[in-house]
Amino acid sequence: MTTDRPSLTYADAGVDLDARAEFVKRLGPIAKATHGPEVLSGVGPFGGMYKLAAYREPVLVSSTDSVGTKVKIASLLGRFDRLGVDLVNQSVNDIITTGATPLFFLDYIAASSLSLDEKTELVQGVANACREAGCALIGGETADMPDMYAPGDLDFVGFVVGAVECDQLLDGASVVAGDVLLGLPSSGLHTNGYSLVRRVFGVGIDEDAAVERDRLMQDEPELGMSLGDALLAPHRSYVQEVAAAREHLKAVSHITGGGLIENVPRVLPSGLGATIDASSWERPPLFALIQREGNIAGEEMYRTFNMGIGLVLIVAPDDVDAVRAKLPEAIVIGEVVEADDDARVRIE
Amino acid sequence: MTTDRPSLTYADAGVDLDARAEFVKRLGPIAKATHGPEVLSGVGPFGGMYKLAAYREPVLVSSTDSVGTKVKIASLLGRFDRLGVDLVNQSVNDIITTGATPLFFLDYIAASSLSLDEKTELVQGVANACREAGCALIGGETADMPDMYAPGDLDFVGFVVGAVECDQLLDGASVVAGDVLLGLPSSGLHTNGYSLVRRVFGVGIDEDAAVERDRLMQDEPELGMSLGDALLAPHRSYVQEVAAAREHLKAVSHITGGGLIENVPRVLPSGLGATIDASSWERPPLFALIQREGNIAGEEMYRTFNMGIGLVLIVAPDDVDAVRAKLPEAIVIGEVVEADDDARVRIE
Repeated sequence: MTTDRPSLTYADAGVDLDARAEFVKRLGPIAKATHGPEVLSGVGPFGGMYKLAAYREPVLVSSTDSVGTKVKIASLLGRFDRLGVDLVNQSVNDIITTGATPLFFLDYIAASSLSLDEKTELVQGVANACREAGCALIGGETADMPDMYAPGDLDFVGFVVGAVECDQLLDGASVVAGDVLLGLPSSGLHTNGYSLVRRVFGVGIDEDAAVERDRLMQDEPELGMSLGDALLAPHRSYVQEVAAAREHLKAVSHITGGGLIENVPRVLPSGLGATIDASSWERPPLFALIQREGNIAGEEMYRTFNMGIGLVLIVAPDDVDAVRAKLPEAIVIGEVVEADDDARVRIE
Repeated sequence: MTTDRPSLTYADAGVDLDARAEFVKRLGPIAKATHGPEVLSGVGPFGGMYKLAAYREPVLVSSTDSVGTKVKIASLLGRFDRLGVDLVNQSVNDIITTGATPLFFLDYIAASSLSLDEKTELVQGVANACREAGCALIGGETADMPDMYAPGDLDFVGFVVGAVECDQLLDGASVVAGDVLLGLPSSGLHTNGYSLVRRVFGVGIDEDAAVERDRLMQDEPELGMSLGDALLAPHRSYVQEVAAAREHLKAVSHITGGGLIENVPRVLPSGLGATIDASSWERPPLFALIQREGNIAGEEMYRTFNMGIGLVLIVAPDDVDAVRAKLPEAIVIGEVVEADDDARVRIE
C-alpha cells in the first residue's frame, strides 16, 4: 500500500453516512404517522411492505414524476415545506383519473447541500399530503450527490401506487359526442411550466440570487401577493372531489404539462375531441401576468399552463347538475365533439 | 401586452415538446416488449396499469433508488447502454430479499443535454433487465431540466413493485445462532461507492474530460481490462438464484451501500450478529486496486463496497449442501452468532 497520500473515507467523498443515519432516524416517526395496519414493518428493511386489502380483481395503477424546476423557486426562498405536497398531489391526481384509490407512496431526494432540517421539511410535506390522500409513505431514498447538483439544487421525485377493481376502471370508453366537460379550478401553476416561467420573470435562472430573491418577494398588486407566493402555491389534490362524484364520471383528465390542449384528448376515445369555451371561467391573474411579461402567444399559454383548470371531469349532460351539487366549484367549460385525430381540442 | 420583447415559447426555455413526443413514440415498442397480458393498455395514459394475479393475501413490496454517480463514468465514456440494467437490478435485488416476485417497474430520467439516442439507450437497458427479471416496464418520466443538470449529467431513478403471499414473507424471524451465511459473487462495484471511487482515480470529478477519459480507457493489467470497463460492469441480478433456493432460505441480504457490515444486520433478529471470514472468498482485484490507490482503511472498504459479495443467503447448516447443489457459486462466508446490538458484524 502506498503511504504518500492521505487516507480517503466515504465522508471525504461528500457522503456522510452518520448524517444519513441521523436523517433516517428522523424519518421514522414522520413516515409512521401515515401508516395504517396495512403497512407491515419490522419485516426487513430493503423494501416497503403494503398488505393489499381484499379486492376481487385488483388493477394496480402507478405513476412517477418529479416537481421539476419548481424546486429552483423554493430553493431561492428557502421554503421547502410544501414541495412535498406538490410531489404527492401531482402523482395522486394522475392515478385517480383511472378510478384508482391511492395506496402507498415512495419519494426520492437527490441533492448536494441540503441541511438535515431542509430534508426533513421535504419529507414532512410528503407525509402531510400522503395522510390527506389516504396513502402511506412506505419508502424512499435520499442521495447525496455533491458532484451532480449545485448547492441549493435538488431533484425531488415521487412514485405512487393505487388500486381499483378491474370492472370499475375509468377508461373513457363510454364517452360520446355531447358529453360535458366540467373543470375544477387549479391552485396556481401546479407543477408545470416552471422552465418557461423562470425565464419570463428572470428568477431561478442562476443569476444574482439576491436580485432574483428580491423579485420573488416583491408584492405584485395584481396578484394580491408576492410573485414567490404565487409561484409556490402547492399543487392541489382532487382525491376527495373525484371520490365524491365517482358514480357520475365517464373520464377524468389531469391538466399537467401540455395543458388542456394535450391532456383532454388523452382520455377521449378515437374520433372524439372537445371544444372548450375559454370565456366560461375566469383565468387567475397570474396567467395574464405571465403572458404579458413573456409576450407569449395565447395558444402557447394553453399548451404550457393549466390556465386555471386543474382537472377535467367528463360526464353525461344529464349528470351535470348532480355533479355540481356535490362539487359546487365545478364549471361547465366545454363539450365533447366528433373530431379528426389532429387538433382534437379547440379553445374558443 | 408589451411588444418590445421577443415572444417566448416553451421550446425557448429548453423544453422541446416535439422532441419529447418523438421520444415517447420510440418508447412504446421498447416498453411493450416487456408486457404480458397483465399489463392493461389503452386505458388512459396517466398511470401504468397492472392487473394483479390471484393472490390469497398479497403483500406489495416496493423499492426506489437511483444509480447514483455511476452515471458520471458512463457519461464520460458515452456508454449508456447498461445503466438501465444497473437501475433495474439494484431495485429488484432489494425486493427479492423479502421473497417477493418482481411485477412492474417505472423509471425517471432527468437530464439536460441527452440526445434522443442516449435516452433511448437508457430505456432499452431498463427494458432488457425488466424482461430478464420477469417484470413489466409500465411507466416512466423523462424530465428535461437544462438549468439543473450540467451537460452530460443526469439522474436516473427507478421504482419497482413486487408481490408475495403474506404467509410466505421472508422476514428472518427463524434465523438462529449457528445458521450459515452463503455469499453470492458480485459482478463489480454494482452501484455503490462511486463517489469515493471517482475521487480515488480522479475520474468523473469534472476536471479535464479528455484526461479523465484517457485514465478510464487505459488498460489495467491487474484487472485484465480497462478501468472504465471494470467500473461500468453492470449490477447483476439475483432473481433466478433466490427463486431456485427459495425453499431453503431464512433471510436474504442485498449488499448495497454500507457493505456487509451494515446490510447483513438489517435482516437479523435483535440479539443476533454475524462473523464473516474474509479469507473464505477471493476479493476481485478491483477492490485491492481501489484500496491501494486511495489508501483506504480495511474497515472503510468493508463499509463502502460489497468486496466481491453481492448477496448473502442465510440458511440452516443442514441446508447448505442443498443450496450449494442448486447454486454452485455460493460460498460459505460466515455464520450467525449471538451479539450485542452494536458492532453486530465482525469481519475476521
